[in-house]
Amino acid sequence: MSESSSGYDPGASSLAGQVQPEVMAELLSVRSSIDNIDATLVYLLAERFKATQRVGILKAEHQLPAGDPDREAAQITRLRALAEEANLDPAFAEKFLNFIISEVIRHHQALSENRRLPEGPGGS
Amino acid sequence: MSESSSGYDPGASSLAGQVQPEVMAELLSVRSSIDNIDATLVYLLAERFKATQRVGILKAEHQLPAGDPDREAAQITRLRALAEEANLDPAFAEKFLNFIISEVIRHHQALSENRRLPEGPGGS
Repeated sequence: MSESSSGYDPGASSLAGQVQPEVMAELLSVRSSIDNIDATLVYLLAERFKATQRVGILKAEHQLPAGDPDREAAQITRLRALAEEANLDPAFAEKFLNFIISEVIRHHQALSENRRLPEGPGGS
Repeated sequence: MSESSSGYDPGASSLAGQVQPEVMAELLSVRSSIDNIDATLVYLLAERFKATQRVGILKAEHQLPAGDPDREAAQITRLRALAEEANLDPAFAEKFLNFIISEVIRHHQALSENRRLPEGPGGS
């Protein structure tokens, strides 16, 4: 498979030429599903950060703390239960949520610090 | 808001009672969207792991290495470009993919080791 106009090569693989063609064909077929899922994940994560950015602005406007431990505990319990239903490792779901939350808190802190910074001589 | 039958309280917050009701209402509204997105992410990640498990089985069956550096480099470049389109921090998208890939490689190694283990006296 050759590169698309975006420069992405769906057939890129360090295994190219070392695998039977039918095995490679099956690998590429599954990988094309993974690529579709990954694009969906990126757009969904972008939407999630839009929502958490709205939360961050609310928190900064009302001088609320960046983290909310009771909310985070409830989210973790819920996601672990959802993961079990979806047949996903609940420990991974929890690690995943913590990964996202730590990024969100970093954004909230940055938002809050930006609002607290004194304006410089040319500040607008 | 009270707990649902699943035990999940969408109103759980360490801020409860310390925030003006209209601010809390807006916060809970955005959080309800975040909860919907998170459920979608869990089911999507479950689907992604189903696909990578299929890849893992193929790799184990054909004694292929767990990681594929050329594939991973192509995925990272593509996801960074998608992230820019989606207005998501490309550095975060890359961190996210690495987080997922390291979990996938862990699964692949476990699969491959399980296949290599000699069967015990009661092995089936």
